[in-house]
Amino acid sequence: MADTMAEIPIRRYRQGQVELVQDRVAVEEPLEIRLAGEPFQVLMRLPGWEKELALGFLYTEGIVRSLEEVTTLHFCGSATDPVLPPNVVDVYLSDAALARRGRRHLEVAYSSCSLCAKEAVSEICRKVPKVSSSLTITAASLLALMARLPEAQSIFRETGCTHAVALATADGAVFLHAEDIGRHNAMDKVIGRGLMQRRDLTQMVALLSGRISFEMALKAARAGIPILAAVSAPTTMALSLAQELDLTLVGFARDGRMNIYTHPHRLSDLEK
Amino acid sequence: MADTMAEIPIRRYRQGQVELVQDRVAVEEPLEIRLAGEPFQVLMRLPGWEKELALGFLYTEGIVRSLEEVTTLHFCGSATDPVLPPNVVDVYLSDAALARRGRRHLEVAYSSCSLCAKEAVSEICRKVPKVSSSLTITAASLLALMARLPEAQSIFRETGCTHAVALATADGAVFLHAEDIGRHNAMDKVIGRGLMQRRDLTQMVALLSGRISFEMALKAARAGIPILAAVSAPTTMALSLAQELDLTLVGFARDGRMNIYTHPHRLSDLEK
Repeated sequence: MADTMAEIPIRRYRQGQVELVQDRVAVEEPLEIRLAGEPFQVLMRLPGWEKELALGFLYTEGIVRSLEEVTTLHFCGSATDPVLPPNVVDVYLSDAALARRGRRHLEVAYSSCSLCAKEAVSEICRKVPKVSSSLTITAASLLALMARLPEAQSIFRETGCTHAVALATADGAVFLHAEDIGRHNAMDKVIGRGLMQRRDLTQMVALLSGRISFEMALKAARAGIPILAAVSAPTTMALSLAQELDLTLVGFARDGRMNIYTHPHRLSDLEK
Repeated sequence: MADTMAEIPIRRYRQGQVELVQDRVAVEEPLEIRLAGEPFQVLMRLPGWEKELALGFLYTEGIVRSLEEVTTLHFCGSATDPVLPPNVVDVYLSDAALARRGRRHLEVAYSSCSLCAKEAVSEICRKVPKVSSSLTITAASLLALMARLPEAQSIFRETGCTHAVALATADGAVFLHAEDIGRHNAMDKVIGRGLMQRRDLTQMVALLSGRISFEMALKAARAGIPILAAVSAPTTMALSLAQELDLTLVGFARDGRMNIYTHPHRLSDLEK
């Protein structure tokens, strides 16, 4: 049975008090789908049901049209195939199905020969500089910024179908915000706006209406943003990346509470 | 100012009663980022801040490292460039930045020369067969299935970081479910499991814990699933695709209520 949750120590802030507690976080790991021995697609996913994920992906992408077109479907976790690297599903298809695969190229970020979250994070950390910022903020100020996130959610209020990201200075004097159907797009929009306005992103806090996946943490780090706070939870891989790249991650920041996962020194009044 | 919301007529079900009402839905449109005149990436997004999105995307992908590396950033919406097709951001970069772009290939689905949601949907509908299914379900049965979705959310309850998708027969006798960090993965996992168990997906309902984007609707249609019901909202482009491909879309299905967006004939007791 794959590990889907990890227990980690966090700082839990509630009504001005900080406690060190154990928390559970969802595991995020890359999975490579290999077609006829060639890397085809990397998905960031929760472990478990890897063969199902590979089959379903190939089916809903229109490459596989029936189970009969799949001649081999192996996952490394199976004891029958000890030579397959971890986090790879090895798929062989009929010629007709294989011909539907088109051309794809994997992202450079995932070219590591052994695909595990730890190595993927290490590889990225060799390429992406650590966040360098002297920015600090009090817990109360951060929660006050989070409380303004609904300002950024006018389309959500009408449709229920968007995420919001805001980029703010610690004092709230600058508060850029964007909505989008995708969290990644909302993040890219505010970062793009910040760049156009020639803001110093190393002095800004990013606020998310949703969850913090590995890719969201990477976007913040690449933009040099030192503090990323979200209404909801981070994944294990987002935490590993944040730890390595000196990014402060805060989750469940709402209603006077928050969890501080990494680099708590930027919360000026909370450090123990 | 870009249109971010559309008003559409829907059927609203509440406590056994159906009303025809107007509802607001978030607009989803493709956006092509063109680098040095070549298609580079298509993002599905909410209209607005297109130049910001393109710049932020290139920056957080590590291709652009400063605004000085961007020599041209045009969006078709600007009156200064009437020859640029709609939904294209035209970007020219310094040689150093351009050299960081790597290689990418666009999905076949988005190869239409004029990138708009309507044409993208038409192009896909020429390739993907319409859903063919005689399945019907009562509103009460569908809400009863939705009420079981928490069974599929054990990791969410502990971590707050996952989405769930279930695939069920109308009577609930079969109820496959999967969680994942990504909605798309959770959908692919249950579809993969259904295929492995040789279930007839044309006789099953898909239940989602989140929203229905274009890509989620496309996955259901490609798998031949006739009814897709979600806790939250669909986008305009999901609705267009569902309309064309005979897929019944239901949103906000919770607490004895639901909105029926397309092909209501599959809700056997509601048709007017």
